[in-house]
Amino acid sequence: MDPASIKALTFDVFGTVVDWRSSIIREGEAFGRAKGLTHVDWAAFADAWRGLYQPMMDRVRSGAAPWTKLDDLHRMGLDRLLGEFKISGLSEDEIDHLNRAWHRLDPWPDTVNGLTRLKQRYILATLSNGNVALMVNMAKRAGLPWDAILGAEVARHYKPQPEAYLRTAELLGLRPEQCLMVAAHNGDLAAASGCGLRTAFVPRPLEHGSKTKDLAPARPWDVVASDFVDLARQLGC
Amino acid sequence: MDPASIKALTFDVFGTVVDWRSSIIREGEAFGRAKGLTHVDWAAFADAWRGLYQPMMDRVRSGAAPWTKLDDLHRMGLDRLLGEFKISGLSEDEIDHLNRAWHRLDPWPDTVNGLTRLKQRYILATLSNGNVALMVNMAKRAGLPWDAILGAEVARHYKPQPEAYLRTAELLGLRPEQCLMVAAHNGDLAAASGCGLRTAFVPRPLEHGSKTKDLAPARPWDVVASDFVDLARQLGC
Repeated sequence: MDPASIKALTFDVFGTVVDWRSSIIREGEAFGRAKGLTHVDWAAFADAWRGLYQPMMDRVRSGAAPWTKLDDLHRMGLDRLLGEFKISGLSEDEIDHLNRAWHRLDPWPDTVNGLTRLKQRYILATLSNGNVALMVNMAKRAGLPWDAILGAEVARHYKPQPEAYLRTAELLGLRPEQCLMVAAHNGDLAAASGCGLRTAFVPRPLEHGSKTKDLAPARPWDVVASDFVDLARQLGC
Repeated sequence: MDPASIKALTFDVFGTVVDWRSSIIREGEAFGRAKGLTHVDWAAFADAWRGLYQPMMDRVRSGAAPWTKLDDLHRMGLDRLLGEFKISGLSEDEIDHLNRAWHRLDPWPDTVNGLTRLKQRYILATLSNGNVALMVNMAKRAGLPWDAILGAEVARHYKPQPEAYLRTAELLGLRPEQCLMVAAHNGDLAAASGCGLRTAFVPRPLEHGSKTKDLAPARPWDVVASDFVDLARQLGC
């Protein structure tokens, strides 16, 4: 792949750009301390919450549920988990604050430096299943220098449905092959590649604390980089 | 209006953020020199091109034409004007380059400084009739520090139709009254106000070289500022 043929980098965000699991645990523990919830295992809570992510989006993808933005899916999951984890007595504002923990995720250590370098040469856009408000608030807090917030909500289709990738490229005024999809998940790259986008794999072995899949590229993606600084270096930034 | 009640500033762009007329004249003159087009009055050309803007959007607003992004409306206008101004012999690439002059508009002198200050405290989003690619490319070139590119294309409705304003607020996860619409045009602010947004008027008396309307606020808008630096000052940034 010739880096000069690429005009935009489109990013998966949860796991690729930000460390959702450590951040949700941190948010949960702080919330638990403030509310005296001493019985909750927040690592188990974070994993359970994320575990509801794909099944809930599947209901939207299949048409069983109408378009529902991720903030609202997160909230539906949260309401269920509050019961399962025996957390009660919270006000609506408190539950909403906890739900918005997903707006306050921390970047991986290399993220901001890498993005800042990449931004000098490329358009940087989110191509996440997260909704626009979530992505905007996360970026403000974490200092993520996006040029555009695109992806599922503006396409009204969740990845890996093709519309999410194709609509993002279309809104950028680019052909798919002018976009480089950056993700820590082989499945995301496979779907992007199927739509004609170029692909960059950046493994994030600590995404789930430990993980057994997505530790290595499943296919010879256009770029394989150890982190975003290495990605910038490989793309000549 | 209490500035603490505002979470996002949403901006009209053409005329308010950038000086489209001087920029199109500059682009036209450079293009004319390169192509030996010595007979063209580029100020007249710029005014004629912009003159087609509202009538062309009206066809989309009324439903007479399907949704068409602004780049394509600009191109339809350009194709017509090339005939009227007796400009011929251009390649497709040359015409496309000229059409994308709208991606290369210069900011007013106070724009970048003002936006940079405002960004410290507020979400900054475009709420323009310009399409996403146009806004992204303009921002990269001019250094406009947007947090999000929203407005007509993601709403698939041109201002002043309410959907453009309401969809932008919705995508930001905000109530309309948490958004402050910033524009140099009273009509834009009237439509935004009708949707519940707060309003800030920043006159741009040189927008059309000279102009006779929109020199002063037509109503007591929430904020009236002389430029973006004054706007930042009034909002406590």
